[in-house]
Amino acid sequence: MSSVRYSYEQLKTFCCDAFEKFGFTAEEAVKITDVLLLSDLYGIESHGMQRLVRYHKGIEKGLIHVDAKPEVVFETPVSAVIEGHDGMGQLIGIEAMKIAIEKAKKSGMAVVSVRNSNHYGIAGYYAKMAADEGLIGFSMTNSEAIMVPTYSRLAMLGSNPIAISMPAKPYPFFFDSSTTVVTRGKLEIYNKLSKPLPDGWALDENGKACSDASRVLANIVGKNGGGIMPLGGETETLGGHKGYGYGMLCEIFCSIFSGGLTSNHTHIGGKGGTCHGFMAIDPDVFGDAKGMQERFSTFLQELRDAPKAEGCERIYTHGEKEIFAYADRMKNGIDVNINTVAEMKNLCDYLGMDSVKYLGDVDFTDAKQSSYK
Amino acid sequence: MSSVRYSYEQLKTFCCDAFEKFGFTAEEAVKITDVLLLSDLYGIESHGMQRLVRYHKGIEKGLIHVDAKPEVVFETPVSAVIEGHDGMGQLIGIEAMKIAIEKAKKSGMAVVSVRNSNHYGIAGYYAKMAADEGLIGFSMTNSEAIMVPTYSRLAMLGSNPIAISMPAKPYPFFFDSSTTVVTRGKLEIYNKLSKPLPDGWALDENGKACSDASRVLANIVGKNGGGIMPLGGETETLGGHKGYGYGMLCEIFCSIFSGGLTSNHTHIGGKGGTCHGFMAIDPDVFGDAKGMQERFSTFLQELRDAPKAEGCERIYTHGEKEIFAYADRMKNGIDVNINTVAEMKNLCDYLGMDSVKYLGDVDFTDAKQSSYK
Repeated sequence: MSSVRYSYEQLKTFCCDAFEKFGFTAEEAVKITDVLLLSDLYGIESHGMQRLVRYHKGIEKGLIHVDAKPEVVFETPVSAVIEGHDGMGQLIGIEAMKIAIEKAKKSGMAVVSVRNSNHYGIAGYYAKMAADEGLIGFSMTNSEAIMVPTYSRLAMLGSNPIAISMPAKPYPFFFDSSTTVVTRGKLEIYNKLSKPLPDGWALDENGKACSDASRVLANIVGKNGGGIMPLGGETETLGGHKGYGYGMLCEIFCSIFSGGLTSNHTHIGGKGGTCHGFMAIDPDVFGDAKGMQERFSTFLQELRDAPKAEGCERIYTHGEKEIFAYADRMKNGIDVNINTVAEMKNLCDYLGMDSVKYLGDVDFTDAKQSSYK
Repeated sequence: MSSVRYSYEQLKTFCCDAFEKFGFTAEEAVKITDVLLLSDLYGIESHGMQRLVRYHKGIEKGLIHVDAKPEVVFETPVSAVIEGHDGMGQLIGIEAMKIAIEKAKKSGMAVVSVRNSNHYGIAGYYAKMAADEGLIGFSMTNSEAIMVPTYSRLAMLGSNPIAISMPAKPYPFFFDSSTTVVTRGKLEIYNKLSKPLPDGWALDENGKACSDASRVLANIVGKNGGGIMPLGGETETLGGHKGYGYGMLCEIFCSIFSGGLTSNHTHIGGKGGTCHGFMAIDPDVFGDAKGMQERFSTFLQELRDAPKAEGCERIYTHGEKEIFAYADRMKNGIDVNINTVAEMKNLCDYLGMDSVKYLGDVDFTDAKQSSYK
């Protein structure tokens, strides 16, 4: 047995109860759970249940302050800077994007930048909030340094994802992507599966290519050097300096605009310090919003209808896979890796929750100890 | 002889006179020349003198209307949509970014989207205009389709560059990069040098890897299939869907916001239709603009000072190479490939300019016929 299948409702109940046990209000627990489970429903398993252990450890170590409330410390009609007071990233992110949406509806567009937050789950959740309101949404976050800039051997930037969502028919454009080749969460999954990493993903502490997920992850935590390559790879030949540049774009909207910590200074000495950036744009500021959505939908359809490469059956537009995964998982349930289920059981034990009631009577023979500390 | 060295002043005189001969005013010719020569001075030789032949052909074929003036067709305090009336891209781009800068100074930020323009040179020129005024500048453009989306075998998006510039000490952050692995201009240079393309750059008409620059360029012009890979390559393993996604971001700001043609519909049937997108953000909307610039400059210095990969001597921040190239070329002159000089001579002949006076008595033995039609 390498995974256990749960229904959405089962996982929601488990997750909400766990976050209430941590000390969040029922309303807050629902918000946090909604972010985490959208990730699993969208098939982005690296950022859903798989990440619970990080929130568990974050709260345990005092990086995440359960009672903290985000505070607007500066604002204009088109902007806000939010001090997160080391609160839970999802709660801060939702609040910040709500402010960006409100301001964009009044002023046409707005940027909100956040400092001193924590990991906020998938960046796309917040971009989607704007698209659900008919706006174009952008969401970015920095993180513990994992990206090794071109010609360096030390991680200096985070996975620094940029997410963009925009309304379209029959489903919205939804792009959510780290500016590294892959996310740290992807390495964590390879580590749980004991699989070697593909070429072109990661570097060891000497800046040399490395396929050992466990070693790379340990080096990231220990800040020993190495990490994940920027999108475009190790050198400039295939554009590694471009992935590094998009990582900088993310850093500008997150840590630079907010006056928070750049990725290389976060997660040092018992301090988190994650920063986020959000932008919302009302399509009405360009005139014909309805016509715009129609034209955009037509373009997306043209992309899907384009001639396929030999051996390829379909061309996806961004967000399509997530829509299909969502429908499938709501109907058929969500497969959770046995090692992640083991972490969920540990969490039950820690919080005094009855693991058999929440997770069933699971056989953990195939589970291995998580490498995450 | 594979190149000829000219001073900045020589090239400026040639270029200004040539554009005046095409029918532009002296003031317009200076603006166009300034964009083109900044590219050569920055070492981005693909977008300077090397591209003159495209403007020549564009004007000759009627794609570029010399007398057209950009027209604001919709605006709000934070936005504008500009109809380019098929004018010269550089003139439209400068006007559009000026409007974005003015609006951002009043409203805090602004987006300007342009339709029915033409190739506007390096995207970074316009981002730099905003940074020169103390703002954060963004510039994007679509183009004739050259990017093959993941799992397709037909180019559907342009090179779709995204440029970002932000003030910093001792020099600004300046990131200007296509969302394809490389630009078409880079393929044109390999073609002029008769060099095979590196692996991971281009696809032939069947969607298979191809190192023949001449074949790929001919296929792009003939719309026969194939083209350049998105940043991240051919498949999702190294993140090709991410480069495709950043290409979509560019398309949204350019063709979708403006109601213009998406890349796959530009340059068909005697119509150009290139679209641009610009954004400017005033750092004052986040409070402490001076402190922000200091913190950003510190981060850039930390990146340059980070431990180097084995065998690497320095880590660059974006825009550094351009600053060094600029200083070198203003002092020592600009090397222009002999094939490009041959194109410049053709242009002199076409416009009735004395090529020996402008370009010197050049030995064209090593020049080959340009493949561009």
